[in-house]
Amino acid sequence: MGGVSDEVLIARAFLNRVAEPACIPLWKLVRDLGPVEAVQRVRAGRVGEGIARAVAGRLPTIDPEADLAAGARHGLHFVVPESEHWPHFAMSALERAALDRVAEYEGGKTQHALYGEPIPPLALWARGPADLASLGVRSVGIVGARSATRYGEQVASDLAYGLARREFAVVSGGAYGIDAAAHRGALAAGGTTVLVSAGGLDSPYPPSHTGLFDRVATTGLLLSESPPGSTPQRRRFLTRNRLIAALATGTVVVEASLRSGASNTAGHCTRLQRPLMAVPGPVTSAVSAGCHALINADDDPARLVTGVDDVVALIGSASDVPAIGSGREPSGDDLRGRLDLLDDVSRHVFDGFRAGRVLTCDELAVASGVNALDVIRALPALQLAGLVEGVDGGFRISAAVARASRRRAVGPK
Amino acid sequence: MGGVSDEVLIARAFLNRVAEPACIPLWKLVRDLGPVEAVQRVRAGRVGEGIARAVAGRLPTIDPEADLAAGARHGLHFVVPESEHWPHFAMSALERAALDRVAEYEGGKTQHALYGEPIPPLALWARGPADLASLGVRSVGIVGARSATRYGEQVASDLAYGLARREFAVVSGGAYGIDAAAHRGALAAGGTTVLVSAGGLDSPYPPSHTGLFDRVATTGLLLSESPPGSTPQRRRFLTRNRLIAALATGTVVVEASLRSGASNTAGHCTRLQRPLMAVPGPVTSAVSAGCHALINADDDPARLVTGVDDVVALIGSASDVPAIGSGREPSGDDLRGRLDLLDDVSRHVFDGFRAGRVLTCDELAVASGVNALDVIRALPALQLAGLVEGVDGGFRISAAVARASRRRAVGPK
Repeated sequence: MGGVSDEVLIARAFLNRVAEPACIPLWKLVRDLGPVEAVQRVRAGRVGEGIARAVAGRLPTIDPEADLAAGARHGLHFVVPESEHWPHFAMSALERAALDRVAEYEGGKTQHALYGEPIPPLALWARGPADLASLGVRSVGIVGARSATRYGEQVASDLAYGLARREFAVVSGGAYGIDAAAHRGALAAGGTTVLVSAGGLDSPYPPSHTGLFDRVATTGLLLSESPPGSTPQRRRFLTRNRLIAALATGTVVVEASLRSGASNTAGHCTRLQRPLMAVPGPVTSAVSAGCHALINADDDPARLVTGVDDVVALIGSASDVPAIGSGREPSGDDLRGRLDLLDDVSRHVFDGFRAGRVLTCDELAVASGVNALDVIRALPALQLAGLVEGVDGGFRISAAVARASRRRAVGPK
Repeated sequence: MGGVSDEVLIARAFLNRVAEPACIPLWKLVRDLGPVEAVQRVRAGRVGEGIARAVAGRLPTIDPEADLAAGARHGLHFVVPESEHWPHFAMSALERAALDRVAEYEGGKTQHALYGEPIPPLALWARGPADLASLGVRSVGIVGARSATRYGEQVASDLAYGLARREFAVVSGGAYGIDAAAHRGALAAGGTTVLVSAGGLDSPYPPSHTGLFDRVATTGLLLSESPPGSTPQRRRFLTRNRLIAALATGTVVVEASLRSGASNTAGHCTRLQRPLMAVPGPVTSAVSAGCHALINADDDPARLVTGVDDVVALIGSASDVPAIGSGREPSGDDLRGRLDLLDDVSRHVFDGFRAGRVLTCDELAVASGVNALDVIRALPALQLAGLVEGVDGGFRISAAVARASRRRAVGPK
């Protein structure tokens, strides 16, 4: 898959099965040693006590080749971080958050919490033609209650329809209620919709959504972190929610009861510094109470949104990642220094910008002579460096560069 | 009325009629010279160009005795700032805001704007038994669209019912929709409701609300700034809104279209530093759009409220007027110094407090040996001095005093 060696695929399939998702020390081991050596260590028992505990149950019976074969039988792609199809852009936020979690774990603060929600997936199972790699650049999570009202379903469907028409990908789960309404809205618009399942993609859950899963897979994407045959356990729903938050530029909660999965999703958005939005509803409706509580939260409140325009306005401005050392206006020298730190491809992409113009990834590819996938990969670094900012419709030179450029200090040619 | 001389009453009736409400220089003249001398100056034409313009239309035909007689025929009280029935507590916020407006006017910034919304009324017409003087201490404005939905009317009515049961006075206008629903809810609870009309109280507007006006007047209060015979002009609705904002400790917008009177009310609340709240509703409802916009406002956003508990929680904490020189913790000496600046009555009221106890105005009257009306008058000064704070259920020693008291520096005996 995507130019990845069988050795790496088999190692990743092993790692994807051997422990539950979001195992802190296992992710760190893979990060440090790569998947192949990590598997050797695990098989040989040369791992810390935490990993040993996490893998003890499944190690004796694990069969990664069988998982890969089962996936292939069900038409699933096995996508790994070494592949060009991996959503690097989306996962970079999880990775940043994960490093804090690893530091806590290694500092002994969470010695007994083997699992940490922001830990990135070790691999993903996918089905469908939509582009996984670019997710997170222009995508909106739409989540909410299973026991949604007609109002909530209508709002979710209208939002998804409108966003899909404006070429945002929709990301949601596979449940009744808001999730299903969102997918249906995006499908009705002929747009891209991404269904992130908590269980294995071989058996859609709930089973009555088999038709919906199939329709999503025809033009969009089914995704799961769990290997074929995995049942959707409660824990997997919670870890699944972090993937929706990461794969979406921002997430909208349409209807939610108090104490529902929405607060979990809200926490993910906060940790990933992704905008969280909520749709208000009648104060007499129990499934709007969670949305109102999110909007009223003292810390990291959700932004009230009433429709597509509100969402696009927020997603646009929220794509502006704060510049390194933000707080003071960077000088032209600062910005040139940051550009020097980037690789050649990123510098070429930056050179593709023209002052005052908003460019899509495809336009940037043409302008910079860099292929579109590499453009997508370069954008997070350019954003983090404060050189580029995301806006509605694409990307442009950041305001800081534009100002410094007017001072003749830095800027694209 | 209330121990006020006929001379003052007649002068106030003259001033109340001679110009439209909220005339900046006229209010300043009355403030500087008192109503009797102000009238002499106006009659003699010894006034500035602004006042001369404001009074030119009505001066030739003015007949204050006839206005007072007409009011009496309709069972109206004419309440003036010199009376013990005047709502000093509520109007103090308008007065503070008005002084800024006067300074702007005199500085020439608003030379052509003779009228300024925060300018306090020169007198009020009232009908009904409820206590006008104490309004603002424990009262909630409930306002919104005339073309309300069933949902909005239900919410307004339920809110008013619940607040009235918790002994908050309800304050609203006299219109169809939210206003009427709020009064009906408060009346159903057997509580106090205050209807502030934009026209003269001799002819209820809309006329079909004559029955509602009568029911409000039986147990609550009808109020108007306009003398008998005044028609409810558009301008008077806007100036009326400032009275609702001032007479309410905080104001809730239940349903409002975009670009409605709600934004005007919101502006008043902001100027008066009174909490503004808004009830969300379906995003598909045009009359919830104004509420959502208020909640989403970049400057001074309204707080989303879903019911009585939310309102009470906000009104309680919002009664805490920031202490003079807030920003740093005042020392015991600071607080004692402020106490020394107050009059004897205020000091007696302060002495009536006991550490850790919340007291109502009536309890304070007993504890301090000061009559209840004087207690109500003293509380704003004590609040402004940071010595006392309003909480749900009454007043207590401020947190700053309690801390200083624990440091043995200041405190009630």
